Amino acid sequence: MKTIVLLRHGESVWNKENRFTGWTDVDLTDEGIKEAVNAGKVLKESGFIFDYGYTSLLKRAIKTHNIVLDTMDLDWVQTEKCWKLNEKHYGALQGLNKSETAKKYGEDQVLIWRRSYDVAAPALDKDDPRNPVFDIRYKAISPDILPLTESLKDTYQRTVPYWKEIIGLTEENQKILVTAHGNSLRSIIKFIKHISDEEILNLNIPTGIPYVFEFTDDDELIRDFFLGDESEIEKNLEAIKSQGLIK
Amino acid sequence: MKTIVLLRHGESVWNKENRFTGWTDVDLTDEGIKEAVNAGKVLKESGFIFDYGYTSLLKRAIKTHNIVLDTMDLDWVQTEKCWKLNEKHYGALQGLNKSETAKKYGEDQVLIWRRSYDVAAPALDKDDPRNPVFDIRYKAISPDILPLTESLKDTYQRTVPYWKEIIGLTEENQKILVTAHGNSLRSIIKFIKHISDEEILNLNIPTGIPYVFEFTDDDELIRDFFLGDESEIEKNLEAIKSQGLIK
Repeated sequence: MKTIVLLRHGESVWNKENRFTGWTDVDLTDEGIKEAVNAGKVLKESGFIFDYGYTSLLKRAIKTHNIVLDTMDLDWVQTEKCWKLNEKHYGALQGLNKSETAKKYGEDQVLIWRRSYDVAAPALDKDDPRNPVFDIRYKAISPDILPLTESLKDTYQRTVPYWKEIIGLTEENQKILVTAHGNSLRSIIKFIKHISDEEILNLNIPTGIPYVFEFTDDDELIRDFFLGDESEIEKNLEAIKSQGLIK
Repeated sequence: MKTIVLLRHGESVWNKENRFTGWTDVDLTDEGIKEAVNAGKVLKESGFIFDYGYTSLLKRAIKTHNIVLDTMDLDWVQTEKCWKLNEKHYGALQGLNKSETAKKYGEDQVLIWRRSYDVAAPALDKDDPRNPVFDIRYKAISPDILPLTESLKDTYQRTVPYWKEIIGLTEENQKILVTAHGNSLRSIIKFIKHISDEEILNLNIPTGIPYVFEFTDDDELIRDFFLGDESEIEKNLEAIKSQGLIK
């Protein structure tokens, strides 16, 4: 069996300010740090020992990952950081407040940008300082494949090939931790669980709750479950759903 | 030019308690965290942007490394964690207080164990729970090469081949951060600066002070220097020297 735990980072400064974040490299809040510590405690209590880790190039995921490992006394777990696990790029919406954007464009439009499968937010101009080609962390990546905006479908097209690498490199009986973002994880879960383009609109991932996937050695899904208190998970999901509303 | 910065982790709990640490995985103190933040600030003010990082499998080095990168807003820098950068293994001395050990065996003997080139501390028994073969983080490493004690010469024999890999993989104009330990760094510096077996006794590495090495593209040393305030470095070194004294 192969066990891969997917984890969405804890609350970030822009989650709290209810702004579209995407590839903006914002930090965790104190609450986000607590969520990461709790995730580490739950994983430790459940007896997890990870063999390897993966995370994105964004600090809210990297720091969540590091805090989880430290809480588990597993700081030494080798971890690959890759841009392919980055959040969905939110184009010109990055930095805008979600409620204000809902007022301006309507809640329905915002829900489409946030949750639809193949509609991307308006793209950044090439000259926009937010264009990833100006960010040194992406300098090794061909500018042709760096996004100016992404639909979830676009995100899927970069995350799923990387997910296949991850599961392919995972050996029998290994346990792997993948710490990433709401939408990069949604796209991976869409692939794993064969979720349709329509159904994916309704899938939300709670922050800081380890989501455990068990596979056969031939990479067939055996089962998936959240590690944690059910009422906590429900509360967490409700808060995420309400972000796109006008107030 | 290739630039490689060597950094000794900040104060650990057992540095503070003046105990022999070796491969024991003790945490940083609050002071150690501050030292790491300061190292990050100094590096950032000096304009460093790292392309890659290396650290050991021990949390006092890993956490120093992560704090430095976070302070520099470079959390995304890919980092390899390797046991070959671990501290010198201190054998059966691990856990003992340095002053008490000096009372029992004499300051001269302790200085020999701490600083001589080819004398190792008494070895651990194979059954000792401190034997690295019982530690899951080393499970991929052949038990034949995991130490029960080490002289600095033994440490050199594992760190220097790894150092050669590091510098070999470093490309022109790249900057690399290597965060490790007093003795693993002493052994590497012995190699880089052609320090004799006798002279190495007198080399101490300050904690939390970035030690910058610049090399030609053919790996010839151009110059080396500490980044930081000279009087701070001097104070830091004096404190390290006094650790092996009876009081």
